[in-house]
Amino acid sequence: MRTPKLTPLAATLPATVPFVGPEAQERQRSRPFQARLGANESSFGPAPKAIAAMQAAASETWMYADPESHELRHAIANHHQVAPENIMIGEGIDALLGLAVRLYIGAGDPVVTSAGAYPTFNYHVAGFGGAIHSVPYKDDHEDPDALIDTAHTVGAKMIYIANPDNPMGSWHHGDVINRMIAGLPDGCMLVLDEAYIELAPADTAPAIDITTTNVMRMRTFSKAHGMAGARVGYVIGATETISAFNKVRNHFGMSRISQAGALAALEDPDWLADIRQKVEAARERIGAIARRHNLAPLPSATNFVTIDCGADGAFAREVLDQLIARDVFVRMPFVAPQNRCIRVSCGTTEQLDVFEAAFGPALSAAREKLG
Amino acid sequence: MRTPKLTPLAATLPATVPFVGPEAQERQRSRPFQARLGANESSFGPAPKAIAAMQAAASETWMYADPESHELRHAIANHHQVAPENIMIGEGIDALLGLAVRLYIGAGDPVVTSAGAYPTFNYHVAGFGGAIHSVPYKDDHEDPDALIDTAHTVGAKMIYIANPDNPMGSWHHGDVINRMIAGLPDGCMLVLDEAYIELAPADTAPAIDITTTNVMRMRTFSKAHGMAGARVGYVIGATETISAFNKVRNHFGMSRISQAGALAALEDPDWLADIRQKVEAARERIGAIARRHNLAPLPSATNFVTIDCGADGAFAREVLDQLIARDVFVRMPFVAPQNRCIRVSCGTTEQLDVFEAAFGPALSAAREKLG
Repeated sequence: MRTPKLTPLAATLPATVPFVGPEAQERQRSRPFQARLGANESSFGPAPKAIAAMQAAASETWMYADPESHELRHAIANHHQVAPENIMIGEGIDALLGLAVRLYIGAGDPVVTSAGAYPTFNYHVAGFGGAIHSVPYKDDHEDPDALIDTAHTVGAKMIYIANPDNPMGSWHHGDVINRMIAGLPDGCMLVLDEAYIELAPADTAPAIDITTTNVMRMRTFSKAHGMAGARVGYVIGATETISAFNKVRNHFGMSRISQAGALAALEDPDWLADIRQKVEAARERIGAIARRHNLAPLPSATNFVTIDCGADGAFAREVLDQLIARDVFVRMPFVAPQNRCIRVSCGTTEQLDVFEAAFGPALSAAREKLG
Repeated sequence: MRTPKLTPLAATLPATVPFVGPEAQERQRSRPFQARLGANESSFGPAPKAIAAMQAAASETWMYADPESHELRHAIANHHQVAPENIMIGEGIDALLGLAVRLYIGAGDPVVTSAGAYPTFNYHVAGFGGAIHSVPYKDDHEDPDALIDTAHTVGAKMIYIANPDNPMGSWHHGDVINRMIAGLPDGCMLVLDEAYIELAPADTAPAIDITTTNVMRMRTFSKAHGMAGARVGYVIGATETISAFNKVRNHFGMSRISQAGALAALEDPDWLADIRQKVEAARERIGAIARRHNLAPLPSATNFVTIDCGADGAFAREVLDQLIARDVFVRMPFVAPQNRCIRVSCGTTEQLDVFEAAFGPALSAAREKLG
């Protein structure tokens, strides 16, 4: 037998994981983490009503989920005051980004993103043969003007921006995003990742305009709603944009339990308001911890705080390693100059207690080692 | 603004659902089904231990699932006496079929399947630009010799066969599949869909041989394990075949709850043995109902029975419509001559009671209408 050959494109792709999961690190260390603050998961958990809905749905999981996600899609549409035809549900933003890239990006098509922005987007672009053009951050913000300028220069078919941004926690006013949209090159799709939007100031999200056929907005139940492991995201867009997903999506791909949980979460705005307060308090506490060690926390509109460790990437990496050695799972930006920082997720009091106790010793150890 | 253009391939794809879900039909009818026997879901439900595990995991769903599915992958590997490197977990066989096609099939690449076999496979092949070559069924079985012959003729890069088969319920001895493997053209991948294998006679599955680099075997928790809505499937294959999935898969795509449920299901062989008996009894009962109406049930190695309605596709379609009108959700093969049949899933006593009560009147109404 001759082993079947991968497609020429697949043959060029590396078999890598964009992120190593905390469980893999725990297996390597042979020791569990005491604080899980590296993946911007919400240790406040899902809404109790969402948990109850998922538990109730467990015995119904012999049935495939409704491939049209009718109930959830209608509820989300109602929530945003758009039509159900303007909403596409999918298995988290990761999956939806993959489908978006597959729909619009072919071999060699130019795509613009920021250097150090969400690597899973780049993974998908590479996976479909697109050509990434990266624009530097500016003052720890993604740079809308530079993204648009570069898109014009290279003839980009797609631009990615996250607002608020991950991994820096920074954000732009909705007006800035609207200016970006107005400046898009002809035929270029803006993928606006709003994974953290529920935790940002109200004016961060531009008004939803479903007549705009060159913008798709990505939302998720993974962050504020605390359901990362459920894999529920959605796209808001023009009818024709949304409809295109039906060409390539895995129609029966949604978990039935996850659909039930997301619906219950959406119907509990009081709980979400409570989470916003908890996240804000956690942001303040992480900021205070950083300042107590004479380090600068970056302003954040997300459920994490990025801490400037005050030196270079090697030092921040050492601080991170020292935290991990003290059983605190955190991550860091991986492109300079953002990689002078570490990124700490907002968590429960217990989780932040562990972080607080470990941070001073981790800093000292890092200074001793590299100083 | 000029609306962004889809890739040339995506532009050619229809925005269709391979199957209309029963919920969509219920919405159209404005009435729920009384028996849900159309999608080969297992109304016997998941194992109680799996339900308990999923309920326990609901509050942990703030965490992403382990992207390596370490625990589940190791348990499945142990179950099959292979290495974890020979197992790839994914969001159901549907998602894994999509990835398999993406890895191996590019524009114009010939792919061979049976006329009327699993349409979601064809959906994926079309979605990546492959060229489907269909081979007729032979005596209501997929035809291994014809599949292999056609693959040689057209220079196929991939062959799909389901053993046992859906929608006919027929199966081949594992020796027949081994002969197929031996006859594969050089560089052609056999995708062996064994979604129903736990319900088939023991000699239906060839021995697992992970040195074979031109076969990938697909398994699922959707059928015998009754977890269709959880979306857990896996591939068994050679290390290099399995590793290739890491190039394109959605690494953080698995539901955490689903992983927990699948693990618990796998660790409950007694429950699976009980399901096998229940499915066998349901097969016998569906067969007896068919015979009582002088119709021939086809032999089945799956959790459904395909009933030959004794006339043409139009008549079977009318019987199906009459069943649906009587609140019984069933489906049927959609290619002649298999479309002379309807397909009824094995279900609980209550579900089959509804089917039994409806079947006679549905047949009479169909005969009256078309006779």
